[in-house]
Amino acid sequence: MRKAVVLLSGGLDSSTTLFQAKNKGYQCLCLIFDYGQRHKKEILSAKKIANAARCKYQVLKIRFPWKGSSLLDKTKKIPLRKKLKGIPSTYVPARNLIFLSFAVSFAESQHADTIFIGANQIDYSGYPDCRGEFYKALKSVIKIGTKTGVQGKPIKILTPLIDKTKAEIIKLGARLGVPYKLTWSCYKGQNKPCGKCDSCLLREKGFRKAGVNDPVYN
Amino acid sequence: MRKAVVLLSGGLDSSTTLFQAKNKGYQCLCLIFDYGQRHKKEILSAKKIANAARCKYQVLKIRFPWKGSSLLDKTKKIPLRKKLKGIPSTYVPARNLIFLSFAVSFAESQHADTIFIGANQIDYSGYPDCRGEFYKALKSVIKIGTKTGVQGKPIKILTPLIDKTKAEIIKLGARLGVPYKLTWSCYKGQNKPCGKCDSCLLREKGFRKAGVNDPVYN
Repeated sequence: MRKAVVLLSGGLDSSTTLFQAKNKGYQCLCLIFDYGQRHKKEILSAKKIANAARCKYQVLKIRFPWKGSSLLDKTKKIPLRKKLKGIPSTYVPARNLIFLSFAVSFAESQHADTIFIGANQIDYSGYPDCRGEFYKALKSVIKIGTKTGVQGKPIKILTPLIDKTKAEIIKLGARLGVPYKLTWSCYKGQNKPCGKCDSCLLREKGFRKAGVNDPVYN
Repeated sequence: MRKAVVLLSGGLDSSTTLFQAKNKGYQCLCLIFDYGQRHKKEILSAKKIANAARCKYQVLKIRFPWKGSSLLDKTKKIPLRKKLKGIPSTYVPARNLIFLSFAVSFAESQHADTIFIGANQIDYSGYPDCRGEFYKALKSVIKIGTKTGVQGKPIKILTPLIDKTKAEIIKLGARLGVPYKLTWSCYKGQNKPCGKCDSCLLREKGFRKAGVNDPVYN
């Protein structure tokens, strides 16, 4: 059975990606980052989803001692989607590069040959490190800069959701039995999603367009 | 004054790189990793060198919860250089990729446009992520995957020592006034360098060939 490392954040996209990887027959090891998000709810969701998928997980704690993102700085407001132009203030410098570097390290140490990440360039909110071309560029870095790469078996990065709309992702996930009730998208960490932030609005629109009921509100 | 992030480990190469960057006129911010090295002596050396160069530093703590390198696993022996074939067991999967990802994040948050790393492919002990082509491949990842990259001002990675022998590095450092007495190369963390490990032997040969006295033994 082929092994894969799956980056799991607790949101819709990474959860759907995990179930897609399982569906493709991979034994999945989930990698969850505790990187100073605004609330711990995301991490809790990610653990629940890994358990629901009967997959092992590893939580990795990292801290960015430098500022530079409204996502990490609790004194800053998170902007509304409709006001966004270009790269939003929630951008964390080199976040996905850091996450993937750890994923490559984890994969190599566990003899996993594939990494799955739920990146998406359709509803991507302007993050440069969520685009397909970023993952293509990383390919040669992994081939040249790792032991398995040099030995002719570079770790692959797969982005099964890269060109899907949120509605398409939700339809796929519903078919695969993703427990969407356990996922968390809201930028706030209250008991129920706020329904107003960028991330809640994107989720609501996705479920509506997919014609699927969002169980998180039940 | 242009700002640069300099990766500083406390060894010969990174210390020489710091003094070279200063000599080129950069305002340097040192980035020191506490990543579970066998001993803390390296980190202490790095701090002393940053202070000697009158540069600010940031220590970043990261832990690899997975095994896979004799450098991180204190129950494993570090192999002798003469017995090495191919990639040694001290290889840490994706280490330099992880370090550089954080350096990119740090640089972007501090408006630094350059990263200096003392990588060297001459005496490089077989690590794939110490070769020039690895840094070339990273260039396009940074261009595509970061905010400053997308805006047309990608952060540059400079490797001034990449093609130098250890003796050439030491000659350069002696000229630049690098306080080699403060540097630490030995894989062991005793009071004095062991003089026997791979890293001590490489250092000893370098100083001998450069015709420079190694102050660490004084």
